[in-house]
Amino acid sequence: MKSDIQIAHEASLMPIQTIAEKLHIDKDDIELFGKYKAKFSNSLWPKIAENKNGKLILVTAINPTPAGEGKTTVTAGLGQALNVIGKNAIVALREPSLGPCFGMKGGAAGGGYAQVVPMEDLNLHFTGDFHAITSANNLLAAMLDNHIFQGNVLNIDPRRIAFKRCMDMNDRTLRHMVVGLGGLKDGVPREEGFVITVASEVMAILCLARDINDLKQRLSRIIVARTRDGRPVTAGDLNAVGAMASLLKDAIKPNLIQTLENTPAIIHGGPFANIAHGCNSVRATLHALKLADIVVTEAGFGADLGAEKFFDIKCRMSGLRPDCAVLVATTKALKYNGGVGKNEWQSENIEALKKGVVNLGKHIENLKKYGLPIVVALNAYTSDSPKEHEFIRQYCLDMGCRFALTNVWEQGGKGGVELANQVVDALDDDSAQFRLLYPDQMPLKEKIETIAKEIYGAEGVTYSEGARSMLENIEDMGFGHFPVCMAKTQYSLSDVPTLLGRPTGFTINVREIYVSAGAGFVVALTGSILTMPGLPKIPAANVIDVNENGEISGLF
Amino acid sequence: MKSDIQIAHEASLMPIQTIAEKLHIDKDDIELFGKYKAKFSNSLWPKIAENKNGKLILVTAINPTPAGEGKTTVTAGLGQALNVIGKNAIVALREPSLGPCFGMKGGAAGGGYAQVVPMEDLNLHFTGDFHAITSANNLLAAMLDNHIFQGNVLNIDPRRIAFKRCMDMNDRTLRHMVVGLGGLKDGVPREEGFVITVASEVMAILCLARDINDLKQRLSRIIVARTRDGRPVTAGDLNAVGAMASLLKDAIKPNLIQTLENTPAIIHGGPFANIAHGCNSVRATLHALKLADIVVTEAGFGADLGAEKFFDIKCRMSGLRPDCAVLVATTKALKYNGGVGKNEWQSENIEALKKGVVNLGKHIENLKKYGLPIVVALNAYTSDSPKEHEFIRQYCLDMGCRFALTNVWEQGGKGGVELANQVVDALDDDSAQFRLLYPDQMPLKEKIETIAKEIYGAEGVTYSEGARSMLENIEDMGFGHFPVCMAKTQYSLSDVPTLLGRPTGFTINVREIYVSAGAGFVVALTGSILTMPGLPKIPAANVIDVNENGEISGLF
Repeated sequence: MKSDIQIAHEASLMPIQTIAEKLHIDKDDIELFGKYKAKFSNSLWPKIAENKNGKLILVTAINPTPAGEGKTTVTAGLGQALNVIGKNAIVALREPSLGPCFGMKGGAAGGGYAQVVPMEDLNLHFTGDFHAITSANNLLAAMLDNHIFQGNVLNIDPRRIAFKRCMDMNDRTLRHMVVGLGGLKDGVPREEGFVITVASEVMAILCLARDINDLKQRLSRIIVARTRDGRPVTAGDLNAVGAMASLLKDAIKPNLIQTLENTPAIIHGGPFANIAHGCNSVRATLHALKLADIVVTEAGFGADLGAEKFFDIKCRMSGLRPDCAVLVATTKALKYNGGVGKNEWQSENIEALKKGVVNLGKHIENLKKYGLPIVVALNAYTSDSPKEHEFIRQYCLDMGCRFALTNVWEQGGKGGVELANQVVDALDDDSAQFRLLYPDQMPLKEKIETIAKEIYGAEGVTYSEGARSMLENIEDMGFGHFPVCMAKTQYSLSDVPTLLGRPTGFTINVREIYVSAGAGFVVALTGSILTMPGLPKIPAANVIDVNENGEISGLF
Repeated sequence: MKSDIQIAHEASLMPIQTIAEKLHIDKDDIELFGKYKAKFSNSLWPKIAENKNGKLILVTAINPTPAGEGKTTVTAGLGQALNVIGKNAIVALREPSLGPCFGMKGGAAGGGYAQVVPMEDLNLHFTGDFHAITSANNLLAAMLDNHIFQGNVLNIDPRRIAFKRCMDMNDRTLRHMVVGLGGLKDGVPREEGFVITVASEVMAILCLARDINDLKQRLSRIIVARTRDGRPVTAGDLNAVGAMASLLKDAIKPNLIQTLENTPAIIHGGPFANIAHGCNSVRATLHALKLADIVVTEAGFGADLGAEKFFDIKCRMSGLRPDCAVLVATTKALKYNGGVGKNEWQSENIEALKKGVVNLGKHIENLKKYGLPIVVALNAYTSDSPKEHEFIRQYCLDMGCRFALTNVWEQGGKGGVELANQVVDALDDDSAQFRLLYPDQMPLKEKIETIAKEIYGAEGVTYSEGARSMLENIEDMGFGHFPVCMAKTQYSLSDVPTLLGRPTGFTINVREIYVSAGAGFVVALTGSILTMPGLPKIPAANVIDVNENGEISGLF
């Protein structure tokens, strides 16, 4: 088959105005970025706010292999398939992070005949949202250090700075550093580290804010440091909020593109689900629900990370109520979870599937806890055998959930008709009784233990000395009612990447805790999860190229 | 009078397609960014390449006060005025850097009734060009450190890394640091420092490249480090070129906006003229010359920096031949150069003018060395007295150059008609005999001395030990034929910011020398010039704000 980028180049795209017209959006309510990208103007929301909401489908997945399991592909393909069967559906996805495009993972625009396009633009700078977030973040950091340099009226303790600079790049060299060297004119020396932009609190805030006023209020609450006597210092204290919000004034507007089959795609926000909350923006989802009868959205990585945070953070804060969950699996990832190495994924191996399918089982159990009907979508590979498909189908039916084989990668929307029909059936049943995993008033420690035990299947949770005292400190500051954003490896239900399948008898080790007071959650870093990735030995960047006409190759 | 941002908001802008139509550009040859910004598509150049070139006017200035002298204002106003008198003229300006908007300087879109608009967009992210440059620069840095981390096959010496990361922010804390700390998994410790994006070599390359192929060739020549045995290591050696160029594929396209009077304005590139070469892109100027009869462009800061580098770097490399130079002066800056403090600029003071006018005189002498007709544009302030204007007019006539009082800030294009007429007269005379200050084959040391003596009026040049040995090394590597990009304070003809007027008896002190092999010049850092600015005690960011409709205030 052709490469993703070839297929994308050969697609017959509609002008983005035409896509907007399909959604009954006036041309004055979008702002064009070239021929095939647009942002929703601020004027759109008041015109659609009173529309009836569509139904909301969450696409999530089992624990993935390092190459990913095609969750975005299935999401785009399901959107296309729903249109094939005559539904008015749109997809609402996350913007890819630039850094990983040059590392191992490649781009994130779906694949095969189920992609959102233009894929190069989406994977590279898109409409500049992440650059705006990087700028706003680093302006706050510069103003913080400048405050200390210029006399430090707020009495900030340079040893207790909580806020980090960020960059949208996989760059391990920036994880730990000493800045402010050079002498009297060059700042005040202190320890610093960069996080990848998608892991920043500003990113989370942009994805959770309802409008510019909400954005500003959240920005003002960011705790950047402590004073010498331990009091928190915020972005508001540094007078940074107006300038930061000015940098974000366009980034807060959702973006409109399309799938290969001209299904409207709203692409906005998208922090990593392993280290951040991992969902597209609340604003984008709210817009989408007003513009279509069915909205297909996704959350990052496996359901232990993406779906849990989609429900317990994004839905909790926004009041969104999903109507159905689609759980993506592949034979490849099930074999991987059954202990089979990369080179043997292509051969039929029912024994390995039997060992690995417990991972799927655990995710089904987990999703049931949220009261949603579940459709398992088996994302087919050409090397799969019918016997393998039948084994998984039977497993799902035995677990009491719907099943559909999808082939959207090879066939586009028509390869997803079975899935679309199952989803529509589930919606028609109207059986969703959405509930959150834990209430606001549960103490933070119990929240962490609830997620660890109920979702991950852990026996318990251990805390580092620092994490334990931060937990108390955060409760004392009055943030005990916040939900918890767990940062954990995506490869395992546990916090150890190599514990595959459905591990038991493990504990979750919380290494570090901090509060994102603006985003409105407490972050718990577990295991050895990092907030700044590195590049692999042979980075994808080595083969990416552009020709004299501006056409890109090597991006996948 | 109203504030710049008020005037900008009240302007009646034309849709950018209409502006493009005025230039006979087909709608398929531009890419829209919202309603009032566009980029030229790659398809435009082949259609206009055979057009006759228009005339090229360079606007430059005397040594400025810290607030700037309205060079961009006069440039935009002259473009408007030329249209008022019936000429087909466009302006070709630089993109402002984001960092200084939050510091002391504020934005850079002109002022009063001579602005380019939309000014907030231009001052903040615009079409993302500088973000793309930052990304490409930092990808190369990440690939360099990753190479060392992953085994260092090229045998790079971590003590001899020449390439720095960059950020578009005024952030002194990032000038000197130690990165790669943290242990085995977090990179290799080494000294590092960030430069502001506009000072980066990638920025210079984008501004000098003719097309994507030229861009790639230049990127591949960037020297990032030395091996343990002293051999240069380039971006090409690291296989970074294709990915960097992919990030720059849109940034290389010139941007089209308009002035308050709907004069087309091509805005593209724009490194700082104190630390970089300080001109808009060659590509933008070449496009502009094909699209209009008269093109008004500018170079940064005073003529000792901006104009010298415009001629000796940009024109040398591109073959551009300017037809006339406009030299902007204000009574304020002349009094400042005459030793008068900020609080007394508003009172008539002929004595101070007499003392300060020697600065203007030196710049006139300098511009004559390049063989161009000169028009002095006195940018009027409401507090100026007629006697002051008359004094300066007479001084210019005595020096044998044209003079025009301009009032474009208060009156827009019609306030610049006298200037426009003088410029047209100068062009009609056809007296330009453009020549460069020094030939390629002159040794680097002599080039530096020629600039220091002929342009700055220095008695000689001293070198640090390191600079001296780098000069030899650069000649040995075969880069002796490159022009020199002087990095020097903008406030004085010397390298000491407080030596105002027309200082004599001073030497220029070259502290550091390095080669930008991709850009194609050698950089000489003089005095205490820095490549990363800091924020002032009360940064402009403190008062910038945005309301719930996305309207910005406090940006000036």
